[in-house]
Amino acid sequence: MYSVGIDLGGTNIVSAVVNDKYEIIASSKTPTNSSRTAEEIFDDIAEITFDAIKKAGLTMEDIESIGLGTPGTVNAEGYIEFANNLAFNNVPAKQMLIDRLGNNNVYIENDANCAALGEAYAGCGNGAKDFVAVTLGTGVGSGVIVDGKIVNGVNYAGGECGHMVIVLDGEQCSCGRKGCWEAYASATALIRQTKMAMEEYPDSLMHRIAEQEGKVSGRTAFDAMRLGDIAGIKVVDKYIKYVSCGLINLVNALQPEVLCVGGGICNEGETLMKPLRRFVQAERYSIHSKIQTKIVRAELGNDAGVVGAAILGKVKN
Amino acid sequence: MYSVGIDLGGTNIVSAVVNDKYEIIASSKTPTNSSRTAEEIFDDIAEITFDAIKKAGLTMEDIESIGLGTPGTVNAEGYIEFANNLAFNNVPAKQMLIDRLGNNNVYIENDANCAALGEAYAGCGNGAKDFVAVTLGTGVGSGVIVDGKIVNGVNYAGGECGHMVIVLDGEQCSCGRKGCWEAYASATALIRQTKMAMEEYPDSLMHRIAEQEGKVSGRTAFDAMRLGDIAGIKVVDKYIKYVSCGLINLVNALQPEVLCVGGGICNEGETLMKPLRRFVQAERYSIHSKIQTKIVRAELGNDAGVVGAAILGKVKN
Repeated sequence: MYSVGIDLGGTNIVSAVVNDKYEIIASSKTPTNSSRTAEEIFDDIAEITFDAIKKAGLTMEDIESIGLGTPGTVNAEGYIEFANNLAFNNVPAKQMLIDRLGNNNVYIENDANCAALGEAYAGCGNGAKDFVAVTLGTGVGSGVIVDGKIVNGVNYAGGECGHMVIVLDGEQCSCGRKGCWEAYASATALIRQTKMAMEEYPDSLMHRIAEQEGKVSGRTAFDAMRLGDIAGIKVVDKYIKYVSCGLINLVNALQPEVLCVGGGICNEGETLMKPLRRFVQAERYSIHSKIQTKIVRAELGNDAGVVGAAILGKVKN
Repeated sequence: MYSVGIDLGGTNIVSAVVNDKYEIIASSKTPTNSSRTAEEIFDDIAEITFDAIKKAGLTMEDIESIGLGTPGTVNAEGYIEFANNLAFNNVPAKQMLIDRLGNNNVYIENDANCAALGEAYAGCGNGAKDFVAVTLGTGVGSGVIVDGKIVNGVNYAGGECGHMVIVLDGEQCSCGRKGCWEAYASATALIRQTKMAMEEYPDSLMHRIAEQEGKVSGRTAFDAMRLGDIAGIKVVDKYIKYVSCGLINLVNALQPEVLCVGGGICNEGETLMKPLRRFVQAERYSIHSKIQTKIVRAELGNDAGVVGAAILGKVKN
């Protein structure tokens, strides 16, 4: 059997047909043009979905379920209540998809939760039923899966682990709180930390690296560290400590089978993952347990969301 | 139908018969004498359980299931892997109860998780399926319930939300980490904070109150605050900020229907609960949601554990 996953992003919309091994067999894509109305955007979603199904050599009758991942909060009735990055609120997304696609088996979910689901079932989770995905990007996104199901919470706003304070009265976070994990562990935070260290260390190699790249990025400190630069080493060490602090908090609270770390910073690979595992190992509460949470790198990259959306029909029933 | 809940504590063991409304209809109690062997302790557990059933006017045939709440970690096979406060590890608790009671429907679970279950189903949760219980006592205990089931995690050590760092590199915690919520929000921490303020404010009313009580307790600062004492007000304000920081972290991560706060400090009632709700309201991430997590005081007191243990049979099947 086949299902369809749709990833409604701020920049692009992707629709993909997935087989029962969670492999993408065909897909179609269009720009979001996010200032448009919901009607216009959902017309495009329908168009690329029919296109993807056609590319797969199938018809809508072959499609068991359709899932859509969207920014913002989605309620039990399939309304997008509040969509950051999109120009609409309180949109009956589920009904709009049913009307346009002629398939009643439609599921709508937050995009970070879809990505977590994709990694849990089809990526690094390898089918783990208790799973947490953390994405170190512009912010720190997360999705929590318990007993194979997404933890939505009473108001479908659950899984915002990036907005857990790790430094009381610390750095201002975009959410209004001070000291959130996101304000220390996001790529944005790493860039801020890198810039501060560059001011403090005018002779650091980070200046030359940033000049060559044309900007300070999440890689600048890591690259400097690899060249033995003291300031770069300091920035990376501290950043890894911030990331691991939140990971250990999640391990102690939920003890998932797998904790998946994704986002651009993960391109550092084992340079990041090895010390993260060491920190978690040293500080986790479950010191007496033979079984421990596996800390792994995300595997599906940008496909996680669309694959997870295609899996919604399996887990939301 | 009836079930039995057993609370194996560091000081006492209680066994209680519970009806299908989760009401205790009979109970029996004995000192734990925690330095004894598992065999001796389980013999006593069997004795008081038969006693409680007899007091209820029932026989073992009337008992649908039996649940035991114990300190420490309990694995899937019903072994107590590691029991802080008790003198044994790796004890086949489930089999030992089956052998002694002649009832095969036996469930073993961590005591904090049992207490959470009791409050969720029979106390302040009023049947809430997504529920978190936090106990402000010697430490900060917690139990997490998602979709009506205890979140045990992969190694049955889940739910240790007290060991989530809220102040990076902060106060030393007993778990080895620095800056855990427990090190700021437990009754023990409040007493430490009170003593520090007393040193700083030699004229504070807290000195007289502590002298009258014979010790500094979790009430000292609250009592001084009620008398308008500046130092007392400062201690209480800061303590409430620490408690609410962790509560907001839990709301943002899990958005439970109900978040229950228990433990000795809760005897302060609305003096504690009102400002806690105000802090959570102001800082929660889910600002756009119509539905919000209810922050409520625990209702069952010491009975939560034994009632929750009696409910295990319903939720662990």
